[in-house]
Amino acid sequence: MTAAGKADPGNFFEDFHVGQEIRHATPRTVTAGDAALYIGLTGSRFALHSSDEFARSLGYERAPIDDLLAFHIVFGKTVPDISLNAIANLGYADCRFGAPVYAGDTLSAGSTVIGLKENSNRETGVVYVRSIGTNQRGETVLDYVRWVMVRKRDSSAPVAAATVPDLPAAVTRNKLTLFAGIDLSRYDNVAAGSPYRWGDYAVGERIDHRDGMTIEESCHMTAARLYQNSARVHFNQHAEKAGRFGRRIVYGGHVISLARTLSFNGFGNAFHIAAINGGLHVGPSFAGDTIYAWSEVKEKAELAGRRDAGALRLRTVATKDRPCADFPDRGADAKPHSAIILDLDYWVLMPR
Amino acid sequence: MTAAGKADPGNFFEDFHVGQEIRHATPRTVTAGDAALYIGLTGSRFALHSSDEFARSLGYERAPIDDLLAFHIVFGKTVPDISLNAIANLGYADCRFGAPVYAGDTLSAGSTVIGLKENSNRETGVVYVRSIGTNQRGETVLDYVRWVMVRKRDSSAPVAAATVPDLPAAVTRNKLTLFAGIDLSRYDNVAAGSPYRWGDYAVGERIDHRDGMTIEESCHMTAARLYQNSARVHFNQHAEKAGRFGRRIVYGGHVISLARTLSFNGFGNAFHIAAINGGLHVGPSFAGDTIYAWSEVKEKAELAGRRDAGALRLRTVATKDRPCADFPDRGADAKPHSAIILDLDYWVLMPR
Amino acid sequence: MTAAGKADPGNFFEDFHVGQEIRHATPRTVTAGDAALYIGLTGSRFALHSSDEFARSLGYERAPIDDLLAFHIVFGKTVPDISLNAIANLGYADCRFGAPVYAGDTLSAGSTVIGLKENSNRETGVVYVRSIGTNQRGETVLDYVRWVMVRKRDSSAPVAAATVPDLPAAVTRNKLTLFAGIDLSRYDNVAAGSPYRWGDYAVGERIDHRDGMTIEESCHMTAARLYQNSARVHFNQHAEKAGRFGRRIVYGGHVISLARTLSFNGFGNAFHIAAINGGLHVGPSFAGDTIYAWSEVKEKAELAGRRDAGALRLRTVATKDRPCADFPDRGADAKPHSAIILDLDYWVLMPR
Repeated sequence: MTAAGKADPGNFFEDFHVGQEIRHATPRTVTAGDAALYIGLTGSRFALHSSDEFARSLGYERAPIDDLLAFHIVFGKTVPDISLNAIANLGYADCRFGAPVYAGDTLSAGSTVIGLKENSNRETGVVYVRSIGTNQRGETVLDYVRWVMVRKRDSSAPVAAATVPDLPAAVTRNKLTLFAGIDLSRYDNVAAGSPYRWGDYAVGERIDHRDGMTIEESCHMTAARLYQNSARVHFNQHAEKAGRFGRRIVYGGHVISLARTLSFNGFGNAFHIAAINGGLHVGPSFAGDTIYAWSEVKEKAELAGRRDAGALRLRTVATKDRPCADFPDRGADAKPHSAIILDLDYWVLMPR
Repeated sequence: MTAAGKADPGNFFEDFHVGQEIRHATPRTVTAGDAALYIGLTGSRFALHSSDEFARSLGYERAPIDDLLAFHIVFGKTVPDISLNAIANLGYADCRFGAPVYAGDTLSAGSTVIGLKENSNRETGVVYVRSIGTNQRGETVLDYVRWVMVRKRDSSAPVAAATVPDLPAAVTRNKLTLFAGIDLSRYDNVAAGSPYRWGDYAVGERIDHRDGMTIEESCHMTAARLYQNSARVHFNQHAEKAGRFGRRIVYGGHVISLARTLSFNGFGNAFHIAAINGGLHVGPSFAGDTIYAWSEVKEKAELAGRRDAGALRLRTVATKDRPCADFPDRGADAKPHSAIILDLDYWVLMPR
Repeated sequence: MTAAGKADPGNFFEDFHVGQEIRHATPRTVTAGDAALYIGLTGSRFALHSSDEFARSLGYERAPIDDLLAFHIVFGKTVPDISLNAIANLGYADCRFGAPVYAGDTLSAGSTVIGLKENSNRETGVVYVRSIGTNQRGETVLDYVRWVMVRKRDSSAPVAAATVPDLPAAVTRNKLTLFAGIDLSRYDNVAAGSPYRWGDYAVGERIDHRDGMTIEESCHMTAARLYQNSARVHFNQHAEKAGRFGRRIVYGGHVISLARTLSFNGFGNAFHIAAINGGLHVGPSFAGDTIYAWSEVKEKAELAGRRDAGALRLRTVATKDRPCADFPDRGADAKPHSAIILDLDYWVLMPR
């Protein structure tokens, strides 16, 4: 036992095995306080999450919690077990949002290890987990896969043969749904802040979201703490000044939230994220960075049995300190422009 | 269409016409979370907004939301339509607070253009709007005029002849009211934190509020985001470093909130702002500034039919990095002392 | 009367007398918003305060407010009367937590002066107060003694002979209780995040809490403002740059909260602080400091009539910019290691 004694050292790569099921700690009752602070940290303006009245006009009980706030809270619970000793959060796949989350709901999370692959240096390995967030009734609110590079405690420790899960490149259209009871016939463009509905977007269309948001240490740390994300790299300047980057690293989810918030300017009616097909944190972000974003419409899908809503598959690219009027992208060699820090592929729902 | 495509470029001066009615986006259900964050950002100690019990003792349903929090939320909604391309927020007039706002109420906002005046340089013009905030029952919670200098998209664009509205120098006494059902007979000075009631103040009396509050980037940005105020100058250091001031500008309303909070020390029983007669952002404020304030009693007014409450017309002057023990003011030439950043004229209600 | 006029100058040492009873201003209805912001500022992960479901499984009505959030709110109310002219917050003793505080409860505070002792320089003196926080039903939620060094207005003012209260070195075991109706038989280690129960800890055991949290100006100011703590030294950089330290001083209670939050890593099942025996702010803390902590189990106590819960007396030591793997402590001469800023002695309750 180290000096830390009962303090949790977190799991190392060799502590995981495929099929392992982990119930995560710290159930969280989400409240109006969380929703307010989320708006305070992002500036989000999507009407569904801002107004009980707007939400009720669509058949919701009241304003549901922002999809990404639910994501971050569930994600945060997985950190102590999965990624306390992680070097990098590599990617997300097959992420689907389920039941809406309302203030008063209590979220819990569990994960199953679905893949393990040691790196050739034997110092680290990639852990693939499927994590599921549930509410107090056991309904799934979120279901996603992420993979993360985790340190080995002991590089000489033997590990099982590699298992790499077969992951879909995107959540298929037929898995996209809208909750029972939702009816967009009374959807109010003016209240929502955009005249553009599903039918107004074309595949291939690109939109520069124009605005920029500068990140402060206090803002990204408060966000990560709100999500009870305990990854050390976000909070400890004393340790990080001797680390890889010399400073605290912004929780990648905060960048996703900022990109989504910026995307309001162009997709104000994208009231719900139905799924995240994949997300890549192309580069780290730090306090002082100003986040910009642009998006491209990759696909359009109808929703089975519905005439009032449709889905857009978006790719949102976020940069730091680099406006996006000319859509900075990957080059011919697929290498991303040096300013890009996030490349997110997801499905949003819009009224038709 | 620019690269921004469907992203909202905001209105330019030539896009407005007198009589134009604009319904603003993003209805907002105000919550206990907003109230808590407002206290966290300002430190406000007015008992009415802090305690349900205190509020009930006066006949309120429960603690209403701080008047200025309601103001900022309504103001924030007007930004995308009115002042996204503004250079300066010039002034406020004839601002009256209506029905109290409680957690759970949903606020919406609309504006009417009541004046337009192109500047002689033809690059900009002044837009006058009357904005009204309403709750979910359609009751007015706030009604005010502001004017703002807005860029023209095209300096050669023709515009209509100037229309400048006739605005009152102050909200007249007979418009000052207290909501039905309020009864101050059980008002508790000790709980409120001040022994001084309406009768204890004299016209001409000046009070230095003593305390100072330093503004941090994270605090003013979180405040503006909480209000869903999307004015770019508050958030984007990357763009602002090449701007007029080389840095982000603090939302002027945050300075008003700080000045009001500081004024607790001297006006602890000024439980309600009934009206704002006029407000001038004399100078910009930036992170790092420490805000001080002093106030002068300009008028005293009885409230029609009430013996339990009276109104004080206050002028509160806020400075930056300059204590106010000697009441820094305008000079003989009416030019404000260089440290002054806010000059606010408003009516507060106090128990008698 | 000074320029400040009706602005409150606060009490000076010669304004106090033993036996004086003070009812403090600013009753506060604690809300889910306060709880959310507290999590956002500390990252606290104790399940009892995070989850209504977890709390109900133990017999609570729903998730109670974090013990220290209640402490800070009560403490904040005492500042304008007790410590506005304080130079240093010297210590705490005999602090017991009473009825749980739920969102919706309204907290008020009062203090009795129980001791006064002028310092030999006659410029300052020590004021001892017993402060009690009550809810809207008059139930005690917190009862504690603190002593603080307060300036004299006039060093030549005569003062009464010294009275120093007899204070217990620790809250005795027989005063430790668990609220009626609480039953830990369904306590869920996994949800709580720790496998270690009361029986697993040994007297003398020391635990390094490993993590570090860097303090930002915006975070500690927002915390102190949330608690409506109006002590000037936390907020005013313009004044403090000419002060003792050249910068704002972090509210000591924020350091206590961070230490408690860090202690989750090792004491995840310490679901309730029952009492604080003593606390010493060994040194000041400033923005930029990274807080680390370690703890030692000083005593173990059974709770009268209960088999499901026990008490641990902990000593938690917090440092700045100094990891605690080797337990930096007081030397043979009892002088604390130079990195130590907090030395806290308290009782926590744990499931057996």
